[in-house]
Amino acid sequence: MQIDVVATAQLVNSEVVEGKTVVVIDVLRATSVMITALQNGAKAVIPVTTPDEAFEMKKQLGRDVLLGGERMAEPIPGFDFGNSPLSYTADVVSGKTLVMTTTNGTLAINNSLTAQELIVASFINSDAVCQFLSNKEDVIIVCSGNNGLYTLEDALCAGQIIYQLQKAGMAVQCTDFALAQKALYESHRDNLGQLSTSGYHYNVLQQKGYVDDLAYCFETSISKTIPVWNGQALVSYK
Amino acid sequence: MQIDVVATAQLVNSEVVEGKTVVVIDVLRATSVMITALQNGAKAVIPVTTPDEAFEMKKQLGRDVLLGGERMAEPIPGFDFGNSPLSYTADVVSGKTLVMTTTNGTLAINNSLTAQELIVASFINSDAVCQFLSNKEDVIIVCSGNNGLYTLEDALCAGQIIYQLQKAGMAVQCTDFALAQKALYESHRDNLGQLSTSGYHYNVLQQKGYVDDLAYCFETSISKTIPVWNGQALVSYK
Repeated sequence: MQIDVVATAQLVNSEVVEGKTVVVIDVLRATSVMITALQNGAKAVIPVTTPDEAFEMKKQLGRDVLLGGERMAEPIPGFDFGNSPLSYTADVVSGKTLVMTTTNGTLAINNSLTAQELIVASFINSDAVCQFLSNKEDVIIVCSGNNGLYTLEDALCAGQIIYQLQKAGMAVQCTDFALAQKALYESHRDNLGQLSTSGYHYNVLQQKGYVDDLAYCFETSISKTIPVWNGQALVSYK
Repeated sequence: MQIDVVATAQLVNSEVVEGKTVVVIDVLRATSVMITALQNGAKAVIPVTTPDEAFEMKKQLGRDVLLGGERMAEPIPGFDFGNSPLSYTADVVSGKTLVMTTTNGTLAINNSLTAQELIVASFINSDAVCQFLSNKEDVIIVCSGNNGLYTLEDALCAGQIIYQLQKAGMAVQCTDFALAQKALYESHRDNLGQLSTSGYHYNVLQQKGYVDDLAYCFETSISKTIPVWNGQALVSYK
């Protein structure tokens, strides 16, 4: 298996993902939200680029649609949800289609849609993602980053996936950048909090009071749900 | 002090470096060559983009000019030197001006020339570089990378510089990317060879037989020479 890692949503495009299995990560918090919503019974998640697109899609698709996402880490006026995974509980999302727009994660997904296959990962589903990847040949892990900048939490999650694949006995051939994220994760995995809490985005969310979200998003492999792109939406992989 | 790290020569431009103190790193091997040549008495090093520019400059500047550099890690036909730092000995470079063109390092320097100040670093002069940086406010470390890709050796050298600045008591404010390179270096510094020898470029040079260069380029702080841009050329910082 060949693995490369891309540092930000802005660095991914159709040329980069052509013929690849793409894994999009936005630990804080878009991909953590998507996994949680599908796990709690949402039918599908549709990532869009702007709030206007989201409102338009809700008009087209009707009343079983919920709107979620953020700008500047805060809920968007007129939306049903912000970007807090803990608010996507079964009683409100079950059977619904979630249309999402976020600054980084939905952008990374939309820039990767022409990949051979596309799944969504976060710390909370990393074991399931490794299982999914175990028979793949050419993998690109897309870290969403934050406004075009590398973020520690996405890089550590990418590193965890590579580390776990190697630990499971996969012969993994890494680019230098993939190797660096794996080495960073491996050398800090016994005390991941010490490094991950130094990240810029982590501290923005902490200052805004999203401490429960932060604790949740760094839990490892508490979900077996893998959002997979079916050509029209992200649905739960069976 | 604020520090950011840029991953490749291709990602740096006049907007990125405006008003900053820029440190360009190309451990394997361009910046290791530049430090070595100036330490061994070369008057100046002029980085140019193409072999044709180098030949043209030699015509203009006359016979005290030597041409050095590489393409695909190999010497350029008609040049005096390849990109092996060990060949830039005092008996041949003393008093001479070296005109250099390489794939990554000279490109990174040429893309950074509008910085407020620009110096050149490698493992071999890292203590001196930290000393130079100790009173700076806004620093960008430009890793040259390899053909647009992140390289482990440049990232580890950037990480070493940040680690040493912090260890010397500097209050350093890092971007996530700078923090990651520092953490990567810090967690591998007792056995740096294990990680650095996994790098793609390292292995290319090893397969081509440049084993003495590799050993030399990973020696730490054996030189006090800092190449600094004086507006026309890199000269030894006094």
